[in-house]
Amino acid sequence: MDRIYATYRLETAHELRRAVDLMAGEQSAGTFVKVPGETPELLANHGARVERITELETVDVPSLPGAKPAKGQRYQRAEVVLSFPFANIGPSMTTCMTAVSGNLYELGPFSGLRLMDVQFPPAFKDAYPGPQFGIEGTRRLTGVEGRPLLGTIIKPSVGFSPQQTADLVKLLCEAGLDFIKDDELQTNSPHSPLAERVQAVMRVVNDFADRTGKQVMVAFNITGDLDEMLRGHDIVLEHGGTCVMVNLIPVGLAAVAHLRRHSQLPIHGHRAGWGALTRHPYLGWEYIAFQKFFRLAGVDHLHVNGLRNKFCESDESVIASARECLTPLLDGYTVLPVFSSGQWAGQAPDTYQALGSLDLLYLAGGGIMAHPDGPAAGVASLREGWEAALAGIPLAEYAQTHPALRGALALYGGLS
Amino acid sequence: MDRIYATYRLETAHELRRAVDLMAGEQSAGTFVKVPGETPELLANHGARVERITELETVDVPSLPGAKPAKGQRYQRAEVVLSFPFANIGPSMTTCMTAVSGNLYELGPFSGLRLMDVQFPPAFKDAYPGPQFGIEGTRRLTGVEGRPLLGTIIKPSVGFSPQQTADLVKLLCEAGLDFIKDDELQTNSPHSPLAERVQAVMRVVNDFADRTGKQVMVAFNITGDLDEMLRGHDIVLEHGGTCVMVNLIPVGLAAVAHLRRHSQLPIHGHRAGWGALTRHPYLGWEYIAFQKFFRLAGVDHLHVNGLRNKFCESDESVIASARECLTPLLDGYTVLPVFSSGQWAGQAPDTYQALGSLDLLYLAGGGIMAHPDGPAAGVASLREGWEAALAGIPLAEYAQTHPALRGALALYGGLS
Repeated sequence: MDRIYATYRLETAHELRRAVDLMAGEQSAGTFVKVPGETPELLANHGARVERITELETVDVPSLPGAKPAKGQRYQRAEVVLSFPFANIGPSMTTCMTAVSGNLYELGPFSGLRLMDVQFPPAFKDAYPGPQFGIEGTRRLTGVEGRPLLGTIIKPSVGFSPQQTADLVKLLCEAGLDFIKDDELQTNSPHSPLAERVQAVMRVVNDFADRTGKQVMVAFNITGDLDEMLRGHDIVLEHGGTCVMVNLIPVGLAAVAHLRRHSQLPIHGHRAGWGALTRHPYLGWEYIAFQKFFRLAGVDHLHVNGLRNKFCESDESVIASARECLTPLLDGYTVLPVFSSGQWAGQAPDTYQALGSLDLLYLAGGGIMAHPDGPAAGVASLREGWEAALAGIPLAEYAQTHPALRGALALYGGLS
Repeated sequence: MDRIYATYRLETAHELRRAVDLMAGEQSAGTFVKVPGETPELLANHGARVERITELETVDVPSLPGAKPAKGQRYQRAEVVLSFPFANIGPSMTTCMTAVSGNLYELGPFSGLRLMDVQFPPAFKDAYPGPQFGIEGTRRLTGVEGRPLLGTIIKPSVGFSPQQTADLVKLLCEAGLDFIKDDELQTNSPHSPLAERVQAVMRVVNDFADRTGKQVMVAFNITGDLDEMLRGHDIVLEHGGTCVMVNLIPVGLAAVAHLRRHSQLPIHGHRAGWGALTRHPYLGWEYIAFQKFFRLAGVDHLHVNGLRNKFCESDESVIASARECLTPLLDGYTVLPVFSSGQWAGQAPDTYQALGSLDLLYLAGGGIMAHPDGPAAGVASLREGWEAALAGIPLAEYAQTHPALRGALALYGGLS
């Protein structure tokens, strides 16, 4: 029978095998004490199975407080793979998440526990349609081929009226961007109600498309209660918009999956709140595991941070996340990774070298707006940076014949 | 104008005030660099405000890796209160969560950041109806007054067929329990489809009610995709059931709030996955903050762990969580705290003393099933433990005239 596999990093001062057996029991048919009805047959059919234990290093100090005392003086780290019977779970993401990421973080023997990866069986394919647009659909809607999509975030994040937002969008369209998004903080707020913002912004975007033939994709942040999100989607669609944005963690998995079934537009997935789940290396989630749930749910774009970002994430982690977005899940479900945070042309060569793909959305803010020759030169500098990256030509060399890139290097070169 | 307040514990080697200003800016109208349009007026109207900074201790070693280098050699801890303009957010839980618990965990200066509490303005009252049943409604449906509700969890967690589950429920009803719940792992699974389980179990429960007049509340775990949950609720209602259960974190806030608007039954909220958000003391969430969102969403019962539990949570944290569930939020929204994990009569006196209330649901497993005189004596021992607690009589003394409690003390007394 099909099983669901989950990989963990964990740490314990208890006897490793016993601790892992307890974890497998707690997340399936076992409990702290033996109970009537827990027959060998039931355990064989419904117990989680310990598939692999790989010992890693030992440490002197526990990563997390609160673990139950043990005889051991040192804390053993290990990578562990468990498998769960499909019969316990069915093709259900929420139940699967309960099994692979439920009570186990709190189990007494562990001074560290992190979910690294999860593998769904094929039955999940039939249950979840996944991204409706993904990379190809997003390229089709924007008309961008052969290079990353170039985008930006409306700033200030909050505070602009709908008309001020539309004025800025006009400027950003004219600067040559492919993609513009609301900030994650800007939803359907009293000072900028979504319906008014969509109307004002789409007037500008549609007018620009009529004049130039270029359809700029604007990701309107429809984050809200469920009915509010569905209405928000319909408003965007009605005004000719081509993308909706959702803050995945505050909204949650079931509502995102429900939106997908209703949606006729790409869903841009923002991961606000992600740091709480990931920032300690022996707690929470690796993005490799996390993003799989939201890809199944049907998100089309997923944020992965960027190289040399302003946050705390390492470049290795950023690239691992982005690669995973481009790696088929159940033979499909690939999504467009979204690079952002402190990005300008300078990270293009390293990003391309590490990722080996142009299938990404590259968001810059200051990298566009602060360009000495204005936003259009800022966008041009991004495009030129990616041309240089693709051709394998050093930025400084390419900049000799490309003034926009030259301006960007002069301004930001010392910062990167 | 109304504002939303959030309290944090944080840690930084950077200049404290500057780091906190950055945090306030990032979560409202500011960004890493100054942008056009960020006028003094806009910042005054839409910026988050630093309300209070209280310095705590300094430490030598950062709590979390990845913070950006600073000149400081020591890490300053502090408690900080920020306030956010209502105009940015509106009466929206998902937007509020994005503001108070969004990107800020990843901000470069911080080697630790935890959301401790949040305060919603009165406008949230109109937007969210909150718990439909709460403490009073649950007491009314179960007919239990003057003592805690006594309950248990169906074990084995998974693996029983619907009929086996019903057979166990019959035994548990006859043992005198007020409340029986599915395990968080047991949802609408292939081996125990919800519709069949509800039908088999409610036949037993309804028959018991007809014979005895006692309506035992069974919390059926309807966790699943949104439509599946709504159907699950309707099935439970149709068969005369009186409670549905949801795994709050895997399902997510927007879908839970939507279920509440559809529901005619109390919603039992399980917090599977909570450990990932809370277990590091300088990361993630305090339960004080977390539970407020789900109370607003309309959950009626909320798990808080139990004293001397089998997990990693301290007794202080358990009691603080339970007290908070009983503390009015926006003048209402109180919910029934659910105590579980390793509970038997032994924790009743300490629980009562610390909580000062009988308004709780007290779940025991082994504390009932492993009683030497059988499950009915197990339930009686819990009831007697709470009688003793309420009367202020030591358990050992009360046990002299109460054989069920005496049996429990003999068996578990050495363990506690």
